[in-house]
Amino acid sequence: MKFTISILGSGNMAFQLGKALLKAGQLVMEIYSRNEIEGKKLADLLETNFIQELKNLKKADIYILAIKDDAVLEISKNIPGYGSLLIHTAGSISINNLQNKKHRKAVLYPVQTLSKNKEIDFSQIPICIEAELNSDLEILKSLSILLSNKIYEINSEQRKVIHIAAVFACNFPNYLYTAAKQILEKGSIPFDIIRPLIMETALKVQNLYPENTQTGPAIRDDQTVLKSHEEFLQNNPDLLAVYQLLSDKISKSRI
Amino acid sequence: MKFTISILGSGNMAFQLGKALLKAGQLVMEIYSRNEIEGKKLADLLETNFIQELKNLKKADIYILAIKDDAVLEISKNIPGYGSLLIHTAGSISINNLQNKKHRKAVLYPVQTLSKNKEIDFSQIPICIEAELNSDLEILKSLSILLSNKIYEINSEQRKVIHIAAVFACNFPNYLYTAAKQILEKGSIPFDIIRPLIMETALKVQNLYPENTQTGPAIRDDQTVLKSHEEFLQNNPDLLAVYQLLSDKISKSRI
Repeated sequence: MKFTISILGSGNMAFQLGKALLKAGQLVMEIYSRNEIEGKKLADLLETNFIQELKNLKKADIYILAIKDDAVLEISKNIPGYGSLLIHTAGSISINNLQNKKHRKAVLYPVQTLSKNKEIDFSQIPICIEAELNSDLEILKSLSILLSNKIYEINSEQRKVIHIAAVFACNFPNYLYTAAKQILEKGSIPFDIIRPLIMETALKVQNLYPENTQTGPAIRDDQTVLKSHEEFLQNNPDLLAVYQLLSDKISKSRI
Repeated sequence: MKFTISILGSGNMAFQLGKALLKAGQLVMEIYSRNEIEGKKLADLLETNFIQELKNLKKADIYILAIKDDAVLEISKNIPGYGSLLIHTAGSISINNLQNKKHRKAVLYPVQTLSKNKEIDFSQIPICIEAELNSDLEILKSLSILLSNKIYEINSEQRKVIHIAAVFACNFPNYLYTAAKQILEKGSIPFDIIRPLIMETALKVQNLYPENTQTGPAIRDDQTVLKSHEEFLQNNPDLLAVYQLLSDKISKSRI
């Protein structure tokens, strides 16, 4: 199936989704963005037109809102015309944040952390879809299947759960990598020494469940090591607090 | 160079190091372990002898203590003979935990999380080496280079720093994966939906630094999303405490 699609936004999601749609043979008709530089960059990349005024949007089958979560409500209100399918791509907000009675509503949420310049294999990204109408769900399916092999029907409540889980599985581990780097720097040790460990830790849970791969002093309840680590972190209250809380939770998970 | 090596221990480290040494063409002479089942299993795998009494250890060039950190002191005391090189493999303890005046001391610490049955490419594992004598450091180098391309000379103090960083980079993220899985289970959502995200998060910091790849509501200071997540976690005080502390630290890392 082929649709006319316009993308609203010029951030990481807009870039990656735009590239994936083009690769899937879809026609990206227009890029709308308030950011002229990034908007034009994306339009050039997709060999399509850039517009900076929402009211000038041409009619399309689908408008994809790849914008900040808290901008969806306002932008969706002001999309001109009628009878198109509005799709937002945000994990944290409901389908009802699309507020426009002249169009139909849907959500397409890729569960992944996206960067503009890092190439990513979209076919491996789980895509969560939701629509008000069954017929639109079919449209979403036929579009998503062009992008990915992993399609999940997920309602707004479940999507919020996934978004929270993603914070625990991505944002928080990344912060802990930063903490590890800070600790290494104190000993003049390069971050490289820990990179294979980070990789292997993520790799292990691709086939196993994380409750079966927990290692370290807290799960062994090795009080000598725990105390010696806490002593080392005495002059860094931020990292000490993190160490103590997470060690405590891991200890509690034993049994 | 070829050494006669005996391995003390039959845990994850003993298995992986034993396999890597054999592959590197070294002669593993004996396996000592208090655990008869696992010790025999490893001896069979390496086509060598198993012994259960420390006093029966044959003379070897090198004894590798791949045992629990807090057992190194006691076991090292009781290694018979004299003039061999004792090597412990523990991140958390000093070279001086090898207490035996009849032998020389060294440390070989692979910075990796090891499992018995998961195949691992030892050549990509950073190995930290330390020895009392320069001549022994040369022996360690010539042995390590057979196992890995990444050799670091690291003293006991620095090794402790690496071990603490490893807790932040491996043990804590793994706990957060478990937390993510718990959250998903509440919404009847499979852990599979989050696996590619875990992988990509680790993959990103293989070339970039984590302070440049931080994403999520806390680094954006998105109070609406933060509050809505905290509300969702109200009935899980453990995960709420983790969410609040880590979000707070990430927010503080903005400037």
